[in-house]
Amino acid sequence: MVRLNEIRAGEVAVEPPSPTDAGLVFIGRIRTPWTDRLACPRQGRPDGPICCIEVFEPWVAALDGITEFERLEVLYWLHLSRRDLVRQSPRDDGIARGAFSLRTPVRPNPIGTQMVRLVRVEGATLLVRGLDCLDGTPLIDLKPDRCAFTPLAPRQPGDDQVGETP
Amino acid sequence: MVRLNEIRAGEVAVEPPSPTDAGLVFIGRIRTPWTDRLACPRQGRPDGPICCIEVFEPWVAALDGITEFERLEVLYWLHLSRRDLVRQSPRDDGIARGAFSLRTPVRPNPIGTQMVRLVRVEGATLLVRGLDCLDGTPLIDLKPDRCAFTPLAPRQPGDDQVGETP
Repeated sequence: MVRLNEIRAGEVAVEPPSPTDAGLVFIGRIRTPWTDRLACPRQGRPDGPICCIEVFEPWVAALDGITEFERLEVLYWLHLSRRDLVRQSPRDDGIARGAFSLRTPVRPNPIGTQMVRLVRVEGATLLVRGLDCLDGTPLIDLKPDRCAFTPLAPRQPGDDQVGETP
Repeated sequence: MVRLNEIRAGEVAVEPPSPTDAGLVFIGRIRTPWTDRLACPRQGRPDGPICCIEVFEPWVAALDGITEFERLEVLYWLHLSRRDLVRQSPRDDGIARGAFSLRTPVRPNPIGTQMVRLVRVEGATLLVRGLDCLDGTPLIDLKPDRCAFTPLAPRQPGDDQVGETP
């Protein structure tokens, strides 16, 4: 993980095209105990502190039914991260590897994903455990855990499509 | 799942603010056998067909080390999805529920996430199983499966922080 915005020995920055292929809207805000990047957990833990996910209007109605799921997938925007390091040195020891083989916040599109346990819902706020992001992190999406979710839509031809062994 | 762009009985559309809070760059393209939204699998399957994830420059160097992981998390942009339905009726039976309690592609920020199995890497292309998206879907991010990844960065205070029972 790049802790702040430094470039370390062995790391490689590129000049990326401007990020204008698609636009995001922040749909809420995440409240956690961590106000400093050097204090955040590196990974969330199921027994971690309760954090709050506040959902903004006009999306509060989209929460209907969410209490059916004990586990949720949360997507959020890593708003303090630089986006241009393709090789990174998490240990700052001169050894670097590709950003896609790390769960570093520094990525071309700095989106974090986390699985959380839903403790309860209070109006437009979800109380959850398992987060590891900074206080104030913008929310992008909430989904039921893929393992707990069974599609409701009618079957489609691709559902039964399997592949050959390569 | 909203199959095309229709609004069904019980579904609710909102007028969202314009999506200008953050910008994405498409970092690659996904090749699958599915060219029609009505044929895509509703969920990927581990024994599904091999699909190709093509990574564009200047991010190819960020793939270094990825073959260490058998399972990867893929984030992609559901480019054909409308974004304004907060309540949806997957069965088209008049019963609607919130978008955040569905894994529908129709979401305020239409980002799909999937866990895939890495079959092999050929240059800037990953061959994987487990996808369920349309051919030509724009790639946003690749990460090691959270379960298989152990942080390399030094420990941080939040790592050990647990919460009280509510």
